[in-house]
Amino acid sequence: MSAGTDAGTGTGVAEGVLRARAYLMRLAEPPAPRLAHLVALLGPVEAAERIRGGADLGRHVGGEVAGRRDVDRVDADLDAVRALGGRLLVPEDAAWPTAAMAAFEHPDLHGSTDWVAPLGLWVRGPGSLATLSDGAHRSVAVVGSRAATGYGKWVAREWSASLADEGLTVVSGAAFGIDAAAHRGCLAVNGATVAVLACGIERAYPAAHARLLETIAAQGLVVSEYPVGTVPARHRFLVRNRLIAALASGTLVVEAGARSGAARTALAARDLGRLVMAVPGPVTSALSVGSHHLARQPGVSLVGSVDHVLEDVGPAGRLATPPARPRGPLDGLSMPAVRVHGALRGFATSTVGALARESGVDPRAVPAALDELAAARLVVPDGERGWCRPG
Amino acid sequence: MSAGTDAGTGTGVAEGVLRARAYLMRLAEPPAPRLAHLVALLGPVEAAERIRGGADLGRHVGGEVAGRRDVDRVDADLDAVRALGGRLLVPEDAAWPTAAMAAFEHPDLHGSTDWVAPLGLWVRGPGSLATLSDGAHRSVAVVGSRAATGYGKWVAREWSASLADEGLTVVSGAAFGIDAAAHRGCLAVNGATVAVLACGIERAYPAAHARLLETIAAQGLVVSEYPVGTVPARHRFLVRNRLIAALASGTLVVEAGARSGAARTALAARDLGRLVMAVPGPVTSALSVGSHHLARQPGVSLVGSVDHVLEDVGPAGRLATPPARPRGPLDGLSMPAVRVHGALRGFATSTVGALARESGVDPRAVPAALDELAAARLVVPDGERGWCRPG
Repeated sequence: MSAGTDAGTGTGVAEGVLRARAYLMRLAEPPAPRLAHLVALLGPVEAAERIRGGADLGRHVGGEVAGRRDVDRVDADLDAVRALGGRLLVPEDAAWPTAAMAAFEHPDLHGSTDWVAPLGLWVRGPGSLATLSDGAHRSVAVVGSRAATGYGKWVAREWSASLADEGLTVVSGAAFGIDAAAHRGCLAVNGATVAVLACGIERAYPAAHARLLETIAAQGLVVSEYPVGTVPARHRFLVRNRLIAALASGTLVVEAGARSGAARTALAARDLGRLVMAVPGPVTSALSVGSHHLARQPGVSLVGSVDHVLEDVGPAGRLATPPARPRGPLDGLSMPAVRVHGALRGFATSTVGALARESGVDPRAVPAALDELAAARLVVPDGERGWCRPG
Repeated sequence: MSAGTDAGTGTGVAEGVLRARAYLMRLAEPPAPRLAHLVALLGPVEAAERIRGGADLGRHVGGEVAGRRDVDRVDADLDAVRALGGRLLVPEDAAWPTAAMAAFEHPDLHGSTDWVAPLGLWVRGPGSLATLSDGAHRSVAVVGSRAATGYGKWVAREWSASLADEGLTVVSGAAFGIDAAAHRGCLAVNGATVAVLACGIERAYPAAHARLLETIAAQGLVVSEYPVGTVPARHRFLVRNRLIAALASGTLVVEAGARSGAARTALAARDLGRLVMAVPGPVTSALSVGSHHLARQPGVSLVGSVDHVLEDVGPAGRLATPPARPRGPLDGLSMPAVRVHGALRGFATSTVGALARESGVDPRAVPAALDELAAARLVVPDGERGWCRPG
């Protein structure tokens, strides 16, 4: 990936902070808003010490950590990730995606306290998260149906490759269908891609994507807030989706059926203040129903090309090229000239008077119109009898 | 057609008015804003008298009528149309589409003086224009590429049939491709359809649509502001398109290429204060490029179904049904129940403590979650050892 690296072992972060966050991240099932609040208040080290020391945490924080309060696997978790060549990225690290995570302070989230930033991220691969949405470097989340059609997968693959060529990072979830096509399109052009998982980063899920995930870990970045050993579960996909939305400047929904997790990720992205884009498809396709429904919601834009995506999420001021219009022979002519040209019948010769009558153009304006048409080689004089089309 | 009829011969309109307008309509090529202004000022009878009498009309009105000032074919024009079973519909007639024509007073047109209402309309067929956009009865213009794909023609035909079934009138231009498919879909369900021509109403243009136009004239309405004998010409299509836009409550663009007259009609419709809707298609289709570009413009909505069209142009308050979401087994369960269910592994039996640890749910909340899952038959007790999935 082009923009720096998160590799190394928490450079510049105190080991105590890293260990405290590793402890806290296993303690509660994300998102744990009360625990996050406690950590923000006390700092990770003191929060971890109090919980380990058996302090009374009150009903709310207590409820979040009660199921796992006796679990303490800091060494095992850090060792396991280091053995994979990965590391724990924490907010105290310069490589933390601070700009992206600021999404969780977006005003539209007030009252939705479940939407908190992760306490840390387990990461694997040479890629960087820090610069994803800092203005200089942009990223797009490409999401959609697992049961995607060939059309959807083609769009995900080709557009992701083009976006990568433009220097954007493609974020997705490594699932079947659209996700995999997006990662693959990006990898095919040696682009930057980030897979955000709903399980531990050591796990190949789905199993058929073991090789894809290895390639992403070798060229890009595999990311999860779940400790090693965590298995995927339904609610974890929903929770993971908020991270995909936050890490990208905009979320592109390629195909979404009527019951679409992708469309929900997209609307979640909107609540985080992110751009949401829907790719159209045939109205006859069940897998475009969700996309078209989405495109009618406020704050969602329709994108019919990579140019549209770049216009929406690319560097400010970049505008899509309007569709190229093939030129016709009458382009650029004045309306009187177009009307006089239309009044010429086949290859017959017409007088100025007849052309004025047929076209309704003021007879005094007909000669100028004929000059214009003659210059464009659309009429020729026929001796003194009048004018006709060139034969 | 369902909503009244314009048949008969100018019921209630003075013959002098009818004759004056027939004279004026041949005098200038539409749209003739200066002549329209003169007629509005003096009334059609006095305007016609002054012009016939050779009055000095000033440079502007004079220029509009100069080419044809010696043409006077009132009797021939009225006779020809009556011989076809048609008539001249004028603003003084109760059947004039007053509400639709009010579009030409829309504020967005200020400064675009070319956009004036026609001086009259030559009509043929049992249909009515008067009630098209009066609130009780709605109409949709269905437009698009002449070189439409099978997909586009399918959408135009099926959606027009459905809109007709819902009591809406479908307005189009009788061209190849989308236009013809729209008229045919409407006729197939005995719906109301209006063809607005860029030539005289006696003319079959394109020639291949002679039978289609006869059917529309027999069941619906064929309309033109051009006198009998007028041949189609490039500029007349542009001028005609403003009438299609004005006569419909909304304009639906089914397929539009990069160089699209349909898209221009649609944006013209927007300037008239009309709704503009774009039908999506595959991003790989050259004939959807214009539609997708259009859908990104302000004031244009994307429609993925007939329900969306009805939501946009139908009776106020009618909302599209959200896409039906197939129900899943975990729908409606609380988040703790979803999390506990996800913590059950295969058919193995788990204790409350193990389920709390795996799911991160407060152990005190696990029994309630299990009760919820048991009620939904998603878990069963396994004696005193714990809980498992029903096998």
